Amino acid sequence: MTVRIQAVDVQDVRFPTSQGLHGSDAMNPDPDYSAAYVTLQTNSDVQGNGIAFTLGRGTDLCVAAAQRLAAPLIGKSLDELTANMAQFWRMMTGDSQYRWLGPEKGVIHLATAAIVNAVWDLWAKVEGKPLWKLLVDLSPEQIVSCIDFRYLTDVLTPEAALELLQAKAATKAERESLALQNGMPAYTTSAGWLGYTDDYIRDRCVEGMEAGWQHFKIKVGANLQQDLHRLDLVRSQIGDDRHLMIDANQVWDVPQAISWMKEFAPFRPLWIEEPTSPDDVLGHRRIAEAIAPIGVASGEMCQNRIMFKQFLQAGAIQFCQIDSCRLGGVNEVLAVLLLAQKFDVPVCPHGGGVGLCEHIQHLSLFDYIAVSGI
Amino acid sequence: MTVRIQAVDVQDVRFPTSQGLHGSDAMNPDPDYSAAYVTLQTNSDVQGNGIAFTLGRGTDLCVAAAQRLAAPLIGKSLDELTANMAQFWRMMTGDSQYRWLGPEKGVIHLATAAIVNAVWDLWAKVEGKPLWKLLVDLSPEQIVSCIDFRYLTDVLTPEAALELLQAKAATKAERESLALQNGMPAYTTSAGWLGYTDDYIRDRCVEGMEAGWQHFKIKVGANLQQDLHRLDLVRSQIGDDRHLMIDANQVWDVPQAISWMKEFAPFRPLWIEEPTSPDDVLGHRRIAEAIAPIGVASGEMCQNRIMFKQFLQAGAIQFCQIDSCRLGGVNEVLAVLLLAQKFDVPVCPHGGGVGLCEHIQHLSLFDYIAVSGI
Repeated sequence: MTVRIQAVDVQDVRFPTSQGLHGSDAMNPDPDYSAAYVTLQTNSDVQGNGIAFTLGRGTDLCVAAAQRLAAPLIGKSLDELTANMAQFWRMMTGDSQYRWLGPEKGVIHLATAAIVNAVWDLWAKVEGKPLWKLLVDLSPEQIVSCIDFRYLTDVLTPEAALELLQAKAATKAERESLALQNGMPAYTTSAGWLGYTDDYIRDRCVEGMEAGWQHFKIKVGANLQQDLHRLDLVRSQIGDDRHLMIDANQVWDVPQAISWMKEFAPFRPLWIEEPTSPDDVLGHRRIAEAIAPIGVASGEMCQNRIMFKQFLQAGAIQFCQIDSCRLGGVNEVLAVLLLAQKFDVPVCPHGGGVGLCEHIQHLSLFDYIAVSGI
Repeated sequence: MTVRIQAVDVQDVRFPTSQGLHGSDAMNPDPDYSAAYVTLQTNSDVQGNGIAFTLGRGTDLCVAAAQRLAAPLIGKSLDELTANMAQFWRMMTGDSQYRWLGPEKGVIHLATAAIVNAVWDLWAKVEGKPLWKLLVDLSPEQIVSCIDFRYLTDVLTPEAALELLQAKAATKAERESLALQNGMPAYTTSAGWLGYTDDYIRDRCVEGMEAGWQHFKIKVGANLQQDLHRLDLVRSQIGDDRHLMIDANQVWDVPQAISWMKEFAPFRPLWIEEPTSPDDVLGHRRIAEAIAPIGVASGEMCQNRIMFKQFLQAGAIQFCQIDSCRLGGVNEVLAVLLLAQKFDVPVCPHGGGVGLCEHIQHLSLFDYIAVSGI
């Protein structure tokens, strides 16, 4: 049977996470983890789902944008879309009147992500595979055909992308069985949100170590003395051999980032995440140069592949944190995974509530098996 | 009487400009010039107006965003807002739940511009001055106090901004009378939109020269042979002494921009505008290096001061084209005018329909009188 999209539902889903300070950081004191939740209804019993991840207010703007942008999909068959995924993605981002409102950034791009990911979800369900497996089973040529290379060809051409993927093709099966056996590395922020008491932080560290975590991340940037206290607390709890990462959520200017990081250096963080504006490629580069060997991580609010291209070109980030619901869905994620591979920068995707972490698992598995794994 | 904001009206205003191909270019084949039109109603007979300039579809998203973002202004007095304009701007851009949808880009930033400019409009009307005169009459200290320097201080501190303005303060009056006498230089695109016949183009050139225009801009990027034909036509009409500028509206990748520009170089364009993605600082730099002495112009879709900072830092643009309705209104425009002055890059603002050109006149006059004029 030809699966055909018959209707698009978009729900405004909000969770009152701010009541427990979960998700709180120096820039976002009271987020209510929320989503514009897209459901593609079809002529079969299979649906496609995708989200725009939001923090509460404004979710309705993403809902309205997703309703409008998804309208052209109604009546289309899944086959039409998957037959040329790059063309599908260009169609989603190429309506010139909507494009003016970005381009490829902000509300319309968040909505694009929700719709694009819903189409991928539908495809995977129709194929009877989890998304990661659908992706892993695509040939290098098929993967390349999913990517819109517009604005990338000065750094990555389709031919070069194909070569990167072909170089990994022969050993995919081996990595697939390894990954299924061992899982993928990850970190926890359970001890790290702002506003927690010392006892609560200590308990979360102990709990985390007992559960086997080797990487702990904490939020910084609101208060220097409190940050030093919390860094000391967490480092003393987790010991010297586990990794500690810190995250400033964009609160610093470039000179301030460099000066606070001098204070934090004795606690040997693996990375500082989002030290300044997510738009500031040259600023991140200056920070990275000043604080090496501590790495700079960024990407959860990096708007599109063009910005990632520059962050990677400039050596401005040492850890690439894609967000699969801020980038324009799986197609654009594929482009950034390949860019990161070209520059040999590890990808550590941005997770979070409301389903973001599920996206991560699929895309990290694919990245390890088909793109970046050794 | 204390002027107080009592209500916010936002209208969805659309003009069917696509019917005559007016405004058409290689990226935007059928724009319908439109606006989310903000009116701040007060307890007096004075209103404040501002717009988000749009191309048709999606105007409703900007309307909804402006309604939500402006809600906190209801009940506030104009004095409260103008007493600390930087704080007002931070309030407009700092709601962390809405900020997540940008930050400072896309739909929410377009809506911010409309609201911020409406407050400036209200202020000017209450003072009984046109906006440019309100701005010109502010002291250097007052201008600096209107700017949110977040993410700029690695390149421009408040102290350095003050020095730039103070250096021009003594000669402001002289430039004001000169400008009122002579007006400001400008260019025309009347002959330049795509889809016009040769005869129509020729007529517009003749008409433009008769009206005294010295600078003519045409759109390129859709078809190389047609572009060469139109460049030849316009250059032969306007002669060697008038200036010809070209505008690709982001259709090229970096290598393609460089190769097309080699073809266009014999027609001696003053600048190529928007040769590639408005997000690509490093790409613009590479193009600028390859095509010098032809300049690169960009900015009409440059999302915020942080991107302009980098375009200027990197030497990626030789002409800075702010758009006062894409940047977050007058406050952010002031920041970019000062950044451009620091890097000695001329500002040639982006105009257009639905009121954009009126903004330009005010801000160009201010720029010439208080910031960049000799």
